[in-house]
Amino acid sequence: MNILIVHAHPEPQSFTHTLKNTAVEELQRLGHQVEISDLYEMEFNPVASREDFTAHGNSDYLNYALEQRHACKNHALTQDIQTEVEKVQKADLVILNFPMYWMSVPAILKGWIDRVFVSGIFYGGKRFYNHGGMLGKKAMLCFTLGGRDHMFGDRAIHGSMDHILTPVQRGTLAYVGFEVLPPFIAYHVPYISEDARKQMIVGYQQHLQQLEQLEPLVFPELEQFDDRLYPR
Amino acid sequence: MNILIVHAHPEPQSFTHTLKNTAVEELQRLGHQVEISDLYEMEFNPVASREDFTAHGNSDYLNYALEQRHACKNHALTQDIQTEVEKVQKADLVILNFPMYWMSVPAILKGWIDRVFVSGIFYGGKRFYNHGGMLGKKAMLCFTLGGRDHMFGDRAIHGSMDHILTPVQRGTLAYVGFEVLPPFIAYHVPYISEDARKQMIVGYQQHLQQLEQLEPLVFPELEQFDDRLYPR
Repeated sequence: MNILIVHAHPEPQSFTHTLKNTAVEELQRLGHQVEISDLYEMEFNPVASREDFTAHGNSDYLNYALEQRHACKNHALTQDIQTEVEKVQKADLVILNFPMYWMSVPAILKGWIDRVFVSGIFYGGKRFYNHGGMLGKKAMLCFTLGGRDHMFGDRAIHGSMDHILTPVQRGTLAYVGFEVLPPFIAYHVPYISEDARKQMIVGYQQHLQQLEQLEPLVFPELEQFDDRLYPR
Repeated sequence: MNILIVHAHPEPQSFTHTLKNTAVEELQRLGHQVEISDLYEMEFNPVASREDFTAHGNSDYLNYALEQRHACKNHALTQDIQTEVEKVQKADLVILNFPMYWMSVPAILKGWIDRVFVSGIFYGGKRFYNHGGMLGKKAMLCFTLGGRDHMFGDRAIHGSMDHILTPVQRGTLAYVGFEVLPPFIAYHVPYISEDARKQMIVGYQQHLQQLEQLEPLVFPELEQFDDRLYPR
């Protein structure tokens, strides 16, 4: 497979970085081609703006999604966006690799999504969920956090991790058509021993060895809803 | 009350911008003091990095939260962060005003949270949820989106809006101690008539007139959990 890892951590010595390197090595060993977008290293600009387009459908009023659609048709995406779009288009699997900041992705990764998941290519009209533009591709989260496993769950202090991941797993990745594989979650990372980290790396290698067997998460299919998107 | 509106939209003519202006006018009319952080206008930098600190506890390895704590004690936050921290400290109510991008806040606003909600001031140790650093203050979301009301709910195509808002309302605002007021949500904005927009503005004015009466959302209290944060 062609695999794109989008990595976002400000510290090159971080454990999140180690997980990214682990994935590169293990995936190459398994015979996959791996490409990296290291957003901090690239100094990726995360701020969506009118400067994202070299030509505008409406230069007096910025509707960002409409300008994305116009730019797709007219080859008017800026080069930094176009390059990332093509990386995703080439990939069979996209891994987002990040430290959880505020129960979500860091801003630099949020901005990669805001700017790269272009309307007209990734979604548009009735092309979303199981009709999304990324149909046939897979995506997966790999992230680190400070909290412990038992702090997440229906009765746990922070609630269910599924709910926390809804905006990115369902509202973003599944929405644009990716099959979403179960995430690899490295809990409590700043506080654990070197041995525990080594076990986590082995756990991640095993997760990556099972990529083809992992059961994708279940999300809505458009056929379950009517034309106005009410449940059938 | 002192009210801070943090506004994040790239188009000054947008309806999201109109909602921000509506809030300024209505809140001033009601006798409140209003301050604005217009993140696009300020060209706010959303990317957390080691450059956020003028002195470092550990200059060889960036643990962002630890450096935040060190910087609090040593007055070593960069001026752009310090200014925003002080605006929040002065506020009795913080309103986040934004267009929903990918079921979440735009990257520029995510980065305002990542960089401004500093460990050591906003939270730290056992100071979170009903013991968080922002205890006694209120916060509220006001956002626009393309989707319709009926697309959100337990059986609806995008699932429950409560789940979608969990990372920001529970995992961020409630986590740092804010009382979170019910959000004002402007659905389907790009597709509705001028009349429907006017009605929404009236609806938002009414929402703002009830600020003191609105029942805050319910989130965990630390007393419901033991020392290791297992449910009692």
